[in-house]
Amino acid sequence: MPERVLLRYFDCLGRAQPIRNALVDAGVAFEDQRITIGHSWRMLKEQADGGPFGSLPVLEWGDDCVAQTLPIAGYLARRVGQYEGLDAMGIARLEMVASVAYLDVIVELAMMLWVPTAVPDSEAATRFSNHEARILHKVDRLDRMLASRSEPFFGGHRPAVADFFVVEAIDMTRAVLGERLDAALRRAPRLAEMRERLARRDAIARYVGEGKRPTRLTGSPNEAESLARIRRYVETANPVKFQ
Amino acid sequence: MPERVLLRYFDCLGRAQPIRNALVDAGVAFEDQRITIGHSWRMLKEQADGGPFGSLPVLEWGDDCVAQTLPIAGYLARRVGQYEGLDAMGIARLEMVASVAYLDVIVELAMMLWVPTAVPDSEAATRFSNHEARILHKVDRLDRMLASRSEPFFGGHRPAVADFFVVEAIDMTRAVLGERLDAALRRAPRLAEMRERLARRDAIARYVGEGKRPTRLTGSPNEAESLARIRRYVETANPVKFQ
Repeated sequence: MPERVLLRYFDCLGRAQPIRNALVDAGVAFEDQRITIGHSWRMLKEQADGGPFGSLPVLEWGDDCVAQTLPIAGYLARRVGQYEGLDAMGIARLEMVASVAYLDVIVELAMMLWVPTAVPDSEAATRFSNHEARILHKVDRLDRMLASRSEPFFGGHRPAVADFFVVEAIDMTRAVLGERLDAALRRAPRLAEMRERLARRDAIARYVGEGKRPTRLTGSPNEAESLARIRRYVETANPVKFQ
Repeated sequence: MPERVLLRYFDCLGRAQPIRNALVDAGVAFEDQRITIGHSWRMLKEQADGGPFGSLPVLEWGDDCVAQTLPIAGYLARRVGQYEGLDAMGIARLEMVASVAYLDVIVELAMMLWVPTAVPDSEAATRFSNHEARILHKVDRLDRMLASRSEPFFGGHRPAVADFFVVEAIDMTRAVLGERLDAALRRAPRLAEMRERLARRDAIARYVGEGKRPTRLTGSPNEAESLARIRRYVETANPVKFQ
C-alpha cells in the first residue's frame, strides 16, 4: 500500500502551487488539504496542523512531516528520484533556481499584494516599482541560465520541482503585472517555450482542465484591491529598467 | 592542491555569516571577499561577481558557483559530508531548521533594520511588534525541536550548517531585540546551551577572538538609527505574546 501523502496549505496558489503541480506531474496520489483563508492563524500556530514551526505549507509523507517551502521542494525532489546521479553542483543548480523563483519572484509578488490599502498611491507606486524591477531582473536571469543549457527544462528532459517553481513564478507575475510580464517574456524565449511545454504535459493539462487550481493568488485580505491598484500603476508608470 | 574556495558578500553579517562560520568550523580554507556596503549594486547585478542571478552571497568552489543563501547552505553541507548517511527526512530536518532560522528570523530582523527613518514611530512600532512576534515564536519552536532530540546539535554530536544558522539567528536577535531575546532564551534552555557549546569550539572561538566577524548586521543605510529606535520600542512596548 502506498504511503499516505498530504499537503496542507491555504486555499490559494501562494507558496504551495509549485509543490502541488510537481506532485501531480510525478503521479503521486496526495490529499490536497486546503485551509480556508481567514482561518484562525493562532490555531495553526499551536496545533499539530502547523507542523513543527506553526506555519504552512506542510507536507506529510508517511511518518515524515516537512515544513518550509524550499525544504519541502528538496524533500519531494529526493522522494521522486530527481537528485539521483547528480553531484553537489547539479543539486545546487536546481535548488538555486527554485530559491530565486520562490523568494525573488513569488514572495516579492506576494509583498505587492499585501501592501495595505491605507498606504497612499504614491508610496505604493514606489514599492511596486522596486518589486517589479527585482522580479523582471530575475526572470531575465532565469532565461539566460536556461538558455545556457541544451535541454528544455532545468531538470533536463523532464521538469524537476525547480521548473514548477519557475513556471508558477511566471504565471503569478502575469496575473499581477500583466503586459509587463508579456514584454519581459518576449525577451526570454527559452523560458516562454519551457512554460508552454510544461503546460502540455498530460497530468498538468488534465489538472488545469479539471479546474483544480485555486483562484486566489495569496491570503492577502485586500488582494482584489491590490490587483486593481497594480493595474493602474502598470498603465501609468514607465516600464522599469531592470538592466 | 585543494580547490580554491571563495565566499563573496557584503561586509556585514546579514545573509552570509552562518556560511562563514560553517566554513571556519569545517576547516575549509577560503577567501572571505567582502564588498564595501554602499558599493554600486548595479555593478554586481551585471558583472560576474554577482553570480548567475546578480545577487550576493555567492560561493565559488573550484569551478562551481552557487548563489542564493539556502542552496549555498545545502551545497556546503554536501561538500563537507554532513548529509552522508541521512535519508530524505534527515536532510529535510536540517534544511527546514536552516530555512526557518534564515527566513523567519534573520530576514525578519533585517526587515526591522531596513524600516526607513521617514516611517513615523507609531507605524514603525506596529511593524516591530509584528516582526518580534514572528521571530520569538520561531525561537520557541526551534528550542522545542532541539529538545525532542538527545544530541546537542541539530547536526547530532557535531554542528551542521543548520546549527550555524540557528546561532546567528539568536545572536542577531540579541543584537536587535536585547533583553527581549534574553527572556525568550530563558524559556529556551536547549537552544541557549547549544549556542554556548558552539561558541566554545576551537576554530569558532579563535575566529571570534581574532575579531574577524563583521560588525555591521546588514547593509541598511540607517542601521544605527533603526537599532536606536528598536531599543526605544523595546523599552516602552509590552513584550509580545507569541503563543
